[in-house]
Amino acid sequence: MTKHLQRDLEHLKKQLLSVGTLVEEATTKSIAALTERRGELAEEVLQGDDQIDTREVQVEEDCLKALALHQPVAADLRFIVAVMKVNNDLERMGDLAVNIAGRAQYLSRHDPIRLPVDVPRMAEAVRSMVRQSLDALIKRDPAVARRVLADDEEVDRLHGAMFKAVQDLMRKDSETIERAVATLSVSRYLERIADLATNIAEDVLFMIEGELVRHQAGG
Amino acid sequence: MTKHLQRDLEHLKKQLLSVGTLVEEATTKSIAALTERRGELAEEVLQGDDQIDTREVQVEEDCLKALALHQPVAADLRFIVAVMKVNNDLERMGDLAVNIAGRAQYLSRHDPIRLPVDVPRMAEAVRSMVRQSLDALIKRDPAVARRVLADDEEVDRLHGAMFKAVQDLMRKDSETIERAVATLSVSRYLERIADLATNIAEDVLFMIEGELVRHQAGG
Repeated sequence: MTKHLQRDLEHLKKQLLSVGTLVEEATTKSIAALTERRGELAEEVLQGDDQIDTREVQVEEDCLKALALHQPVAADLRFIVAVMKVNNDLERMGDLAVNIAGRAQYLSRHDPIRLPVDVPRMAEAVRSMVRQSLDALIKRDPAVARRVLADDEEVDRLHGAMFKAVQDLMRKDSETIERAVATLSVSRYLERIADLATNIAEDVLFMIEGELVRHQAGG
Repeated sequence: MTKHLQRDLEHLKKQLLSVGTLVEEATTKSIAALTERRGELAEEVLQGDDQIDTREVQVEEDCLKALALHQPVAADLRFIVAVMKVNNDLERMGDLAVNIAGRAQYLSRHDPIRLPVDVPRMAEAVRSMVRQSLDALIKRDPAVARRVLADDEEVDRLHGAMFKAVQDLMRKDSETIERAVATLSVSRYLERIADLATNIAEDVLFMIEGELVRHQAGG
């Protein structure tokens, strides 16, 4: 039974990482669609979301099955619970990548607007957080997880700067309002992806250390 | 400017409620698909999700626009922030209704299994929580919001009973494992919808009372 459980846990980990890879690709593509104004890349993200959703459901069911069949305790139980939560967060990130792709499609059909915020830099910070949160999970590395928590502050700062820049632009030129809001949405979706990567990092810390950082001030 | 803001807030409220209505319908339909073994109802839920997603994006953008244009403070700001969070939670519920519909399709194609847990009763409790959380928002009624928090415990209890029942069934008859896990998934999706209704109720309380019940023991 225990050998069987270990095999199931190994399988869950692989499945989860394959969801993670799909989500990372979707995020990267949706941002490229935005910055390179490539509608066809956005379309690929929209088309790919069903696959992420299907895989998420599969991982969820396999977790439930492992829980029901093996009734694991302690570290094994914590691992399965972490997989369920991370799986859920990953699927959510996939949805946000779809939302970014939608705004990228809209913006690529209209004249570009100039904003003093470096969206590719923000996107790269977010992409790196997603990657690191998964790395932290695979390697069970609390130091990597803590780095994700720290990086979230940079993303929040960039989103705040975007908000201010959009306000200024809208006041100066009301013609830009729709495009400015679409760009602000992208920034907000990126911020939410970063929040989800932060959730994952917290889940990893909880899994490793049995510690609930979520409720600690500062982490 | 203030009149304009009030009009925008009223518009946001209506938009949000229309998302809520769509989500409530999707949830009700997905459960009917399950309990009445009607694959065509499940298909309707799957088809309807794009509309929910599109509306969610629209509400999000309108909120961002209202924030950027009016720079609201105090109660108006709290209201817009609550709308953004509730909107997000509603879209998530829509996704979970889609997941339930998927399991309903699977189960309707296979022989029924008997479980001693009353899924329609659980579903009705969840549907009522969703409805009440939206009522609490429209009527700004903290008493209704608190009822949602209390009802969540009943749903958790029913999900726990389902988990035990599924374990027993799987042990008795390994032929049922796939169907038992699919049914357990439905129970877990319902529990997650209930959690999201609880989030909404907490956001409503926060909006009305400026109080963060999320971190209070027992609410």
